[in-house]
Amino acid sequence: MLSVESRHMLTYYSQTARLVIYAEGEMTKGKAKTAEGVLRYAKNPVVAVIDSKEAGKKVSDITWISNSQVPIVGSVRESLAYKPDALLIGVAWSGGRLPAAWRADIMEALKSGLDVINGLHDFLSDDEEIAKVAADHGRKLIDVRRPPENLPVGTGKAIDTKAMTVLTVGSDCSTGKMTVSLELDALAKARGRKSQFVATGQTGIMIHGRGIPLDRVIGDFMAGAIEELVVEAGKDNEFVFIEGQGSIVNASFSGVTLSLLHGSCPKAMILCHKPTRQEDTAGFKLWSLSKLIPLYEQLAACMRPSKVVGIALNTYGMNDKEAAKAITDAEAETGLPATDPVRFGSEKLFDAIVKYQEKIS
Amino acid sequence: MLSVESRHMLTYYSQTARLVIYAEGEMTKGKAKTAEGVLRYAKNPVVAVIDSKEAGKKVSDITWISNSQVPIVGSVRESLAYKPDALLIGVAWSGGRLPAAWRADIMEALKSGLDVINGLHDFLSDDEEIAKVAADHGRKLIDVRRPPENLPVGTGKAIDTKAMTVLTVGSDCSTGKMTVSLELDALAKARGRKSQFVATGQTGIMIHGRGIPLDRVIGDFMAGAIEELVVEAGKDNEFVFIEGQGSIVNASFSGVTLSLLHGSCPKAMILCHKPTRQEDTAGFKLWSLSKLIPLYEQLAACMRPSKVVGIALNTYGMNDKEAAKAITDAEAETGLPATDPVRFGSEKLFDAIVKYQEKIS
Repeated sequence: MLSVESRHMLTYYSQTARLVIYAEGEMTKGKAKTAEGVLRYAKNPVVAVIDSKEAGKKVSDITWISNSQVPIVGSVRESLAYKPDALLIGVAWSGGRLPAAWRADIMEALKSGLDVINGLHDFLSDDEEIAKVAADHGRKLIDVRRPPENLPVGTGKAIDTKAMTVLTVGSDCSTGKMTVSLELDALAKARGRKSQFVATGQTGIMIHGRGIPLDRVIGDFMAGAIEELVVEAGKDNEFVFIEGQGSIVNASFSGVTLSLLHGSCPKAMILCHKPTRQEDTAGFKLWSLSKLIPLYEQLAACMRPSKVVGIALNTYGMNDKEAAKAITDAEAETGLPATDPVRFGSEKLFDAIVKYQEKIS
Repeated sequence: MLSVESRHMLTYYSQTARLVIYAEGEMTKGKAKTAEGVLRYAKNPVVAVIDSKEAGKKVSDITWISNSQVPIVGSVRESLAYKPDALLIGVAWSGGRLPAAWRADIMEALKSGLDVINGLHDFLSDDEEIAKVAADHGRKLIDVRRPPENLPVGTGKAIDTKAMTVLTVGSDCSTGKMTVSLELDALAKARGRKSQFVATGQTGIMIHGRGIPLDRVIGDFMAGAIEELVVEAGKDNEFVFIEGQGSIVNASFSGVTLSLLHGSCPKAMILCHKPTRQEDTAGFKLWSLSKLIPLYEQLAACMRPSKVVGIALNTYGMNDKEAAKAITDAEAETGLPATDPVRFGSEKLFDAIVKYQEKIS
């Protein structure tokens, strides 16, 4: 019998591969969420970023990653000087049709000896022309969003996990759930605690090298897909930090969120919120933190008691004073510790998790 | 541009096709949910049922469908005497591997000139051997659970639907949601109101001839898959009865349930419950009706205000006196009208829907 890992937590690629990130036109717009996540958190060396509109600059010049000296270059050809092993696609095309210019760039990368890593719903390995070029040049196409086959239906078995399982939940999509889970995992390790991050989305998988692309899994198998990962991660770790997805109140993706909540059976949750946002990505008014917390706790309680033990604010775009006020406001509203883990560190949240763990054990 | 219907509400097969239902070993056990649903509600004539353990009997002899004179026969060969057009598979195999005996029966049906209709997660048209036999004999393999391609992400647009949209929700899976939606749709039509049933599961699709197999849709597109159907159905009808799926508190399938709730934006809900059940299909204790109602209403309120306006009890296995008591108990607990629409008719629930419609319009 195959191990759980090889069955359901595919290892997509080596964390020593040298990456060039393809972010044509997107670094400019500050919309390259995948590119910035990989630059900030992946163990893989990123040797260059491709965006012809910003060529000649460094990543630190145009992003909040202030210490990144990674060069931005104008083309696949220029990136080859930095000896990459793989091109990681950090841009999204809409409507399922790859723009001709990007298609040409992907094929040039393959012909130049690079593997290509893709996190989109559209799989490169299903594209006959691209697949043929990859085969002809002996290169790999790594579609990280392709889920494993034969996933099981959920049974609720993650309820028995011994480790302290912590799921990030959100007031919306793109509020920092992956980032917060990664920061907490890093801090736990820095403090000498055994900890594991569980990736559930394409960027998390690219950073961690493996995981399950939950939003790409067929409805009936979403809860089953995550529970095996949590059970496995919980065996040899004190802490398991599970990357959250979407929001229970965001109509577009709420089903993925609820399957993740019920499949992972977290003992605690961290609620992630972006104070500058008024409407969710579907255009509906955001819910208040104080209304969201009991809703998440009530839904989690289907499986076992679970508490939101802290608030992680994404204060990107605010100055320090505004960020501090947002934190004070969130603490006053919820009675819970709050902080922005990227701006101020995640100690406050980790301490709240440890304190709650001691209380329930 | 293709119509919404042809893009997203696949018409799977004609409602005049003469069906033989393959329920080998399952009619005996009373587990043939699909077979019984099709026998009870499909417009298609069902000419025979195959179950070798019950051959020679009539459907009414071994099911609660007391008026069905449909003969049960022992083999595909025997069923041919009744001139069927298609074999509809009403049994499930587990683990994705079709038993050899069933495989032989399917191929015999194809060779005998029948199309084959299949509602399982495993698609017959992906099975090379079966696909070849079908092609060689010019027969169709109709996998009703294969969703359309290029489904959109949900946007919440069903919020603007003019029709009275009613979603059945449940305390668990298999509590009668499809049946209740079908009964209410039939009653609305009998009263001269324009009404449409929207099928969201394989049996509903087999009965209605079209629909969306929501639990087979990829997570990110579940809400988007249902909302277009509801918008379309809402244009020319006073009432739209949407087949519910799973339960918000059943860990295995709750994500499908929530996507359906948020994608369909119902104005009212009917809560379906089986009073004899203590644990849900995942083995967790059922929630009380009085706890479930505010949870469903709160989650629906992400989109727009929505009320549970009635309780549909599935009292199968109870005698009339027990059923009446269960109804009285549910009404006392919830303050809402309750009935078993199959045993006692659905007038009470339909009247509650009309009353609520008048209140909110």
